[in-house]
Amino acid sequence: MLYDPQVFNIYEGLKREEFIIALYYMEAESRDLLLRSAAIAVEQSTGTWTAVPEETWDVKEQSLARVIGVHEIPDYEDRVPPDVKTRKFLVQIAYPTININGQIPELLTTLFGNISMIGRLKLVDVQFPKSFVENFPGPRFGIEGVRKLLNVHGRPLLVGMYKPCVGAPPATLGKMFFEMALGGVDVVKDDELLADPTFCTVEARLEASLKAKERAKKETGREVLYTVNITDSPGKMYKKALKVIEMGGNALMVNTFTVGYAALADLASDPAITVPILTHPAFAGSYYEAPLNGVASNVILGKLPRLAGSDMIIYPSPYGKVPLVRERAVRVAHELACPFYHLKRTFPGPAAGMHPGLAPQMMEDFGVDVIFGAGGGIHGHPQGTIAGCRAFHQAFEAVMAGIPLRDAAEKHKELKAALERWGVYGEPGHEYALAI
Amino acid sequence: MLYDPQVFNIYEGLKREEFIIALYYMEAESRDLLLRSAAIAVEQSTGTWTAVPEETWDVKEQSLARVIGVHEIPDYEDRVPPDVKTRKFLVQIAYPTININGQIPELLTTLFGNISMIGRLKLVDVQFPKSFVENFPGPRFGIEGVRKLLNVHGRPLLVGMYKPCVGAPPATLGKMFFEMALGGVDVVKDDELLADPTFCTVEARLEASLKAKERAKKETGREVLYTVNITDSPGKMYKKALKVIEMGGNALMVNTFTVGYAALADLASDPAITVPILTHPAFAGSYYEAPLNGVASNVILGKLPRLAGSDMIIYPSPYGKVPLVRERAVRVAHELACPFYHLKRTFPGPAAGMHPGLAPQMMEDFGVDVIFGAGGGIHGHPQGTIAGCRAFHQAFEAVMAGIPLRDAAEKHKELKAALERWGVYGEPGHEYALAI
Repeated sequence: MLYDPQVFNIYEGLKREEFIIALYYMEAESRDLLLRSAAIAVEQSTGTWTAVPEETWDVKEQSLARVIGVHEIPDYEDRVPPDVKTRKFLVQIAYPTININGQIPELLTTLFGNISMIGRLKLVDVQFPKSFVENFPGPRFGIEGVRKLLNVHGRPLLVGMYKPCVGAPPATLGKMFFEMALGGVDVVKDDELLADPTFCTVEARLEASLKAKERAKKETGREVLYTVNITDSPGKMYKKALKVIEMGGNALMVNTFTVGYAALADLASDPAITVPILTHPAFAGSYYEAPLNGVASNVILGKLPRLAGSDMIIYPSPYGKVPLVRERAVRVAHELACPFYHLKRTFPGPAAGMHPGLAPQMMEDFGVDVIFGAGGGIHGHPQGTIAGCRAFHQAFEAVMAGIPLRDAAEKHKELKAALERWGVYGEPGHEYALAI
Repeated sequence: MLYDPQVFNIYEGLKREEFIIALYYMEAESRDLLLRSAAIAVEQSTGTWTAVPEETWDVKEQSLARVIGVHEIPDYEDRVPPDVKTRKFLVQIAYPTININGQIPELLTTLFGNISMIGRLKLVDVQFPKSFVENFPGPRFGIEGVRKLLNVHGRPLLVGMYKPCVGAPPATLGKMFFEMALGGVDVVKDDELLADPTFCTVEARLEASLKAKERAKKETGREVLYTVNITDSPGKMYKKALKVIEMGGNALMVNTFTVGYAALADLASDPAITVPILTHPAFAGSYYEAPLNGVASNVILGKLPRLAGSDMIIYPSPYGKVPLVRERAVRVAHELACPFYHLKRTFPGPAAGMHPGLAPQMMEDFGVDVIFGAGGGIHGHPQGTIAGCRAFHQAFEAVMAGIPLRDAAEKHKELKAALERWGVYGEPGHEYALAI
């Protein structure tokens, strides 16, 4: 028999609680899409390129992956046109969770290990059974928890970013923190490029930032989270996390894609790490950017950071300096916020090049459970940092009240100046200059 | 002045001890390649999409990245032909090491953080100054150290892999280990898909493997390394590493690309981890496979694993089931073994679909300082596992003695059977069946 009956299955015949289901997009010069799909399933579970004696019926029954769907694009039935050389298809493969033992590195190895290297194959989705997800506590705070810490409900959060990205001394950042807090940011975020250089260490800028935070709180009465970038090798990162909490820090930031999901999961599941964690997407494009290789953004920026326990995540918005197709950005937000067993919702933060003129479109796409992360769009405001923050809040209020931004700007000089500098998204004549 | 003089530099004008130099391949619809290149340098260091007040001259002098080379392909001088819409070019950018403080996650963030997400940009090379590399001890053993542990010199190493990849119980693996050791393997390697499942835990198979190792040693007198796959989240992985060493294990394996280079570096630089570490390339293709995105294989599989301290690495050979262009595979080997300041050499192991008939070509490409990693090519041998190992050694000896494999096979029944089953690479009629 040409087709090993153990490797083929249909969805309904699967004990779904025992399998993780992956969806791949493939292109191949193949006369037999079923055999090509089966080769993937075999390679990523029990088999190899040549028959080996110990790959027995029992071993396969327990550990072999199953092909549960093969769908050619378009969906030829009567014949594949003779001029079609490269066939395009989606393949669904189910992997036994028993092979993986509830950890992310082996999940990645199973879903996209050796087959990551064969080319023209992209992992575009993953569906988890409850039994697997139960190995992960997920976000400790999530959207509701972060809102509770800040006592901010029913509107987007404003996240102010330190700029310049890297190079400024702690005292400059402290001054910037104070102004951002006065202006009304909910979260101050380190830049991803600012980790722990000698001229601005984690401890030095935490100290400067916390002082500024307390000073501002006396004036505003409002809490501000400071997501300090502790990115480093996992061992050092963990020690830094403890130190930050000991010093009174109230949030953390990790460049998750440079240290790995599992390092993030170690932090998020540790009882000593009692503060929310924000993921920055630096390096994430290495995985998802290519249309025919790697892993899609909904998995990379959505499902996996949530599984690993990120409370907030910054990722490219469809309207900024780092491009991302609009439907992809919205889909990432769905992965972060739709029901997912016991996992709390992760705050989506589409960003990079944000300014107040984007508020109407952003809130139409993402609602109010969204983070507005802005650096240049705050500090680059013609009237300075405090005005830069206020302009954002004025924009939020206008959108929520159903007032066009241009009308609201007549009553708010900060918003007016912001719109004069950066325009309103969608207006005729609004040209967004991509900086990269 | 259109061109910020602080962002442009030439190589000779750079204090090179203070900069890491990255080389990118780009494609863009751009009228000004210099401004496009400068935007990358600015984004990845001090700047953002709009001017901000604190990005001062001093900040930039310390922390701004510099564009040191822009080379269009082909190298137009008199004019860019009017029909050329998409321009192709290589860009060299120098990043101040002071921004990074000697750690791999921030290195990745700096080299390819936000710009990983802009598309049609691939990081193709990195050059490090000594001052940065001095932060890393590199491989503890390297090629010479591993050879010394095994007392094997002047020939390739044979690495036998457990097959099936996942699903077999420890007792089956123990039996396989014994036979591989009798047959003459130097290293027994876990499969990347076999980490720590309930039916075959790290401890259970280490126990079975070590017993088999001792039993075989009584017969052969030879040492065998067992690279046990401890891949897990960094915290658990570290504990497993200590446990393995405590139990008498003599080597470790990590799916480095699923846990991160920094987790590997944490292990390699820890005084308690006293055994060699082998990197498996699972998931690595997510980074390097796309021609216009991600990071090239020489960096991903070569320079970075060596920097992070891998003693051995398995990666795709040009002749097996997982394709890799021949010059790329050789280039990876160069990155692993050419002089690199104080770093020891990492053993290259181009593999996946290896059999004895590939020995002449592999040794022509890679010399004798190479690992032959084989699973199916050992256990799938018609005369069994012991014969499968012997056939490899017979092939090595023939190549080193300058005897054609077909001639040597006349005197060695194991080699003869292997060649009958899988052929000799490059012979007319030799067809290599790709399994994936």
